Amino acid sequence: MNPHNQTVPPARSTAGRGDLFASRMAKTPKSFIREILKVTEDPRIISFAGGLPSPALIDVEGIAQATARVLAADGRVVLQYSTTEGYLPLRQFIADRYKKRLGLSVSSDEILITNGSQQCLDLIGKVFIEKGDHVAMERPGYLGAIQAFSLYEPVFHPVLLHEDGPDPSQLKDVLAKHHQKFFYGVPNSQNPSGVTYSEERRKEMAEILSGTGTFVVEDDAYGELNFSGTSRSSFWKYLPDQTVITGSFSKILAQGMRLGWIVAPRDVMEQIVIAKQASDLHSNYLSQRIACEYLAHTDIDAHIRKIQGAYRHQCELMQQLIAEQFPPTVKFTRPEGGMFIWLTLPDGVSSMDVFDAAVKEQVAVLPGTPFFIDGGGSNTLRINFSNSTDDKIREGITRLARVIRNLSKP
Amino acid sequence: MNPHNQTVPPARSTAGRGDLFASRMAKTPKSFIREILKVTEDPRIISFAGGLPSPALIDVEGIAQATARVLAADGRVVLQYSTTEGYLPLRQFIADRYKKRLGLSVSSDEILITNGSQQCLDLIGKVFIEKGDHVAMERPGYLGAIQAFSLYEPVFHPVLLHEDGPDPSQLKDVLAKHHQKFFYGVPNSQNPSGVTYSEERRKEMAEILSGTGTFVVEDDAYGELNFSGTSRSSFWKYLPDQTVITGSFSKILAQGMRLGWIVAPRDVMEQIVIAKQASDLHSNYLSQRIACEYLAHTDIDAHIRKIQGAYRHQCELMQQLIAEQFPPTVKFTRPEGGMFIWLTLPDGVSSMDVFDAAVKEQVAVLPGTPFFIDGGGSNTLRINFSNSTDDKIREGITRLARVIRNLSKP
Repeated sequence: MNPHNQTVPPARSTAGRGDLFASRMAKTPKSFIREILKVTEDPRIISFAGGLPSPALIDVEGIAQATARVLAADGRVVLQYSTTEGYLPLRQFIADRYKKRLGLSVSSDEILITNGSQQCLDLIGKVFIEKGDHVAMERPGYLGAIQAFSLYEPVFHPVLLHEDGPDPSQLKDVLAKHHQKFFYGVPNSQNPSGVTYSEERRKEMAEILSGTGTFVVEDDAYGELNFSGTSRSSFWKYLPDQTVITGSFSKILAQGMRLGWIVAPRDVMEQIVIAKQASDLHSNYLSQRIACEYLAHTDIDAHIRKIQGAYRHQCELMQQLIAEQFPPTVKFTRPEGGMFIWLTLPDGVSSMDVFDAAVKEQVAVLPGTPFFIDGGGSNTLRINFSNSTDDKIREGITRLARVIRNLSKP
Repeated sequence: MNPHNQTVPPARSTAGRGDLFASRMAKTPKSFIREILKVTEDPRIISFAGGLPSPALIDVEGIAQATARVLAADGRVVLQYSTTEGYLPLRQFIADRYKKRLGLSVSSDEILITNGSQQCLDLIGKVFIEKGDHVAMERPGYLGAIQAFSLYEPVFHPVLLHEDGPDPSQLKDVLAKHHQKFFYGVPNSQNPSGVTYSEERRKEMAEILSGTGTFVVEDDAYGELNFSGTSRSSFWKYLPDQTVITGSFSKILAQGMRLGWIVAPRDVMEQIVIAKQASDLHSNYLSQRIACEYLAHTDIDAHIRKIQGAYRHQCELMQQLIAEQFPPTVKFTRPEGGMFIWLTLPDGVSSMDVFDAAVKEQVAVLPGTPFFIDGGGSNTLRINFSNSTDDKIREGITRLARVIRNLSKP
């Protein structure tokens, strides 16, 4: 199997009625990750290819109790239609947490509850992107965002991501060449690279973007997963009128409940509400009420510290094994948090060859190419540490080291 | 307040940064219904304006028990990420029910689970509509569909809806003038009119559409709510390669869980899966599992018969009072099911005037104008019978009769 064929440009199956579908569909890469995951459904395979939070860290008991309370106390209401914006006390919880964690002033009416943070990206595409509009994003960039925005047919402008954030002079160049509707990035523990922007880089970018009319779309799926519990500034602090933040309960509460949120200045929020109404009326109200009830009765900080500790341990173990066993020519990132390590193989070693050979050894990794909207990255790999036990990390990395050593031989 | 100003064309609040938003946003009417509902939030108001199923008919206890079982037995799985297509046993339940109810052959891999049926309309817009494409729909047409499709900037072509379905010669004319991507309709107990297409009209339409390449988007939110429990044929029976069906658990199970589904031929489904992935990865998995568990342990036919019986009673009571108290010049539909009666006032009587006067009498109704994409309908009203007690129906219709009598005086 060569998953390469299934991504940029995507395979189309419109034979027979070729003009039936809108042109946007041909521009949207089918999820390479989901295709890969199909290969790795075999339970004997040790998979570092996916992006799943650890199910062992979900507080099932606490959520079950909150669910029972909500259904017993207010069943007819929580199962009825609700508001497009989302449950106000949950939005207030989010606003309060921004204040507490980051010192940010965000009002509950600048927050809307979504079906996971992926929906934020769809709503942002709907509201902002006219076909042919220019959009800047990190290189490598998050595949979910590439997919979501592609449906609105922008022209993408990649900005190289360094270890401390996007390249400022590339960002300036891109802004000088075309008006960019927004810059999309994941400043904290980026997917796929694990990079966290430095505070200086955030400031510098904010200065470059200030007054340009170009928004920052700050995807903050992993902000709460910084291993040290520290937080850098949100762009909302520097550019409150030019920033949209996307957030998620998937990594700290439970991903199957599909709860995310979007933060936007009021005039943008007004458009987002219209787009959300048209898209699906409102987010799952039962889940919103369960989350709110759960958060009211849980020490969420302690729960998040537990997740941070577990992921730190898994990440450090993986890094240690990589340092010990991989050829020294393989470079890897040292994430401050999140769920991913990013590998750069020696020139001439193909990550697709590594993928194919690793699957034979019953280990799955994710080749980095789909994260490069302009091609390239053929010697990069993303590996996930959040969803593996120590034993699987030890065994899987050992096998992967063997594969890479074999392929790196001159 | 004049809700008229807030609909077609919609008020925009982009003053100051006018070119920030994509042009599609200006084309999407903000939900007139939601604006009206804000007026009617006052609990003293008797509202026939909304479109809510009766919360009294939700089996809260049964759902709570199913929820507890699912979380106890499989908590870590039901709170983890899941597949884009949706939970297979739930899709199989839906396929089996089509077989049983309608004799339709639908396979589970032609079904995808959505966040309520509104999301089906968004996905259909994404997959089919290129800006400027032609789309035919009923006149009056469902506002939620107008909103969803508007985001993809089609040219709408209304086809007059008679008591037995859309006008066939208008449909032919519309098809002759432009290639229509699809015809959108609600063949069973339409929203807003309450009309159900006759079997003959379905056949005739299918003959007209066969081989044209124009799809039928059959929105079947109310098919299970036929008071007599009988069902007419789906267009899928006549045009299996040219039909997309949207369905919903909102009216038979619980609307706050946001569970709908879309049925499409395989080549269309392949595109819908890509669009769904990009839009929000997958639907709420906890809710899918709860629904499936509930359906496995419930006599859903008995539950639906209970809903049918209650709505029939409420509808008949409302019709009886209308016949007794409204001026004979007011025409009203005799729905076979669903949740709405449609009123046509005598020429020269404005439904906006009725709305304003009725609010003063603490009754809310929905003026029909936003359902007419090409203008008109200013003497039409939609009233909802599903979400009112007998007492409220008696009192509310009596007050409304007084308002209409006063405004109908020469």
